[in-house]
Amino acid sequence: MPDFAVGVDLGGTNMRIAAVDESGKQLEVISTSTEVKRGRDSVVSDMCDAIRALGAKFSSTHRLVGTGIGVPGIIDMESGLVKESPNLPDWAEYPVREEIQRRLGTSVMLENDANAAALGEKWLGAGRDVEDMCMITLGTGVGGAVVLNGHIWHGMNGMAGELGHMAVYPDGAQCGCSNRGCLEQYASATAVKRMAVEKIASGHAPELARAMSENPEFSAKVVFQYAIQGDRQAQEIFRAVGRAIGIIIADMINVLNLQMYVIGGGVSSAWEMFSPTLFAELRHRSFVYRATEPDNNLTAPQRRKTIITRALLGSDAGLIGAARLPMMR
Amino acid sequence: MPDFAVGVDLGGTNMRIAAVDESGKQLEVISTSTEVKRGRDSVVSDMCDAIRALGAKFSSTHRLVGTGIGVPGIIDMESGLVKESPNLPDWAEYPVREEIQRRLGTSVMLENDANAAALGEKWLGAGRDVEDMCMITLGTGVGGAVVLNGHIWHGMNGMAGELGHMAVYPDGAQCGCSNRGCLEQYASATAVKRMAVEKIASGHAPELARAMSENPEFSAKVVFQYAIQGDRQAQEIFRAVGRAIGIIIADMINVLNLQMYVIGGGVSSAWEMFSPTLFAELRHRSFVYRATEPDNNLTAPQRRKTIITRALLGSDAGLIGAARLPMMR
Repeated sequence: MPDFAVGVDLGGTNMRIAAVDESGKQLEVISTSTEVKRGRDSVVSDMCDAIRALGAKFSSTHRLVGTGIGVPGIIDMESGLVKESPNLPDWAEYPVREEIQRRLGTSVMLENDANAAALGEKWLGAGRDVEDMCMITLGTGVGGAVVLNGHIWHGMNGMAGELGHMAVYPDGAQCGCSNRGCLEQYASATAVKRMAVEKIASGHAPELARAMSENPEFSAKVVFQYAIQGDRQAQEIFRAVGRAIGIIIADMINVLNLQMYVIGGGVSSAWEMFSPTLFAELRHRSFVYRATEPDNNLTAPQRRKTIITRALLGSDAGLIGAARLPMMR
Repeated sequence: MPDFAVGVDLGGTNMRIAAVDESGKQLEVISTSTEVKRGRDSVVSDMCDAIRALGAKFSSTHRLVGTGIGVPGIIDMESGLVKESPNLPDWAEYPVREEIQRRLGTSVMLENDANAAALGEKWLGAGRDVEDMCMITLGTGVGGAVVLNGHIWHGMNGMAGELGHMAVYPDGAQCGCSNRGCLEQYASATAVKRMAVEKIASGHAPELARAMSENPEFSAKVVFQYAIQGDRQAQEIFRAVGRAIGIIIADMINVLNLQMYVIGGGVSSAWEMFSPTLFAELRHRSFVYRATEPDNNLTAPQRRKTIITRALLGSDAGLIGAARLPMMR
């Protein structure tokens, strides 16, 4: 009987629950709106119903190894407490693991959502052939994860991986975390929109100004469309994104010398707009990166290339990674 | 019979070779000038003589477990080649491990000198009670090392740990590594002197200007003495040092969430001049650091404090760490 696990990707607006077999095949996926407004009890109730349903449905043909849940926020790994979750405000200090375990009568594993996405990419996506990688998820915010020897590096309190809060420009834009110039302020969808609004306000971006006035849903996606169509101001914004990511990845390469750096999340769709600047920054800023480029002077057997690449699993990464958690136990 | 090992700390101007027993006691230390000018053959010859002498001397009372050598430069861990060494120019591309092994007839272990110093601090110094730490060595340049699970994190090519080349200010001072605004440009002894010279040139530091004109050996140490004596310009330089280190350690805490960050090297003597700014930056820039401060809201059993501290072993760290290498095998 093949193994399977249930994975949950809990978002601020949607929740997905999947039965995933040991080969990574999604046997079934249940999608629901998270209905944050109805409160965490209702969300946990829906989640547990779906977990039970999927567990029962496949238990005649597969052996259930467990349940993994990706949660957007900071999780205390020891206690299973959600410490802080900007997208699920009433979940702070909520003993979510204990509560779900009580309802299900079995143990479950929690993971931060950016870490779950990295685990997914490590298992079946861009990182499937490497043991050590770093992932940056460019969404509304910027999430990050460090995978060492095939496992998430959690650090002392389970709070490691916050690449979105590394300072790109120490005197730059104020971040909600109280630091200044965080990567999140230059590479998230929120940041792309903010940079566009700033350009519009300065009077230097007439095309973007028109787009904003015509489109009530003006967003990072719209800025990207203008960039593709050749608008130079929009293109400049994505160069700023690439520069910021490049500065941070150069730091990471110099410090950890990992084999792979994976970029995912919605803004990574703009890869062709920001990646040329990103690679230029890496060559300029990291002698460790240059030493692993094909034209270096390392002798062949020692040469292993640093790979910077897009994520492959899209919005499934977190769901697949969550299901992977109990399989790795 | 207790174990012992021979450690070598190879510097640009001095070389020390020590027999160290399994408890960390230095049984005997031989110091020589490195005599870089006489060439690497002569240095290796002196080194091998001393290793042989110490090995023979203690072999009747102790069991020799091996020899470890700390080398200033980038080492290819697989081949044992020195890739680059600014302080030992004719050692680049030199198969130093093979050469020493040929002469001694036994295997030896190489390590980058900053990594060796971190291993020493981990074994007998500031990090003796932790498994995960990061070390920054503030010398002529700025070296770094990452220790995870008690072992040096080498990365894909053995080049990990280059904290000195993380960008503090991405548009800042040009670094020899081709990056801009590296930590090394704001926290090394070279940087302290450069910042003083810049202040003097701008006409804003009359006391330092007098010091430089009177003292042909004007150095970071002189700037430190002026800072201690209350010179505000000199104090401002060390605040800049603290700010730069704080920005980088905040990044490291956010990404790796390690338990300890150790600051060593000559410039760390100025701890009381730069550390207040360093701690202020950490509180301001790292929510992970704040979450591990005693006044946080983590529940008691989960609370473990992030420790930022001076190194304890001074210039012995690298020697002791080199001797530790064969003991960890």
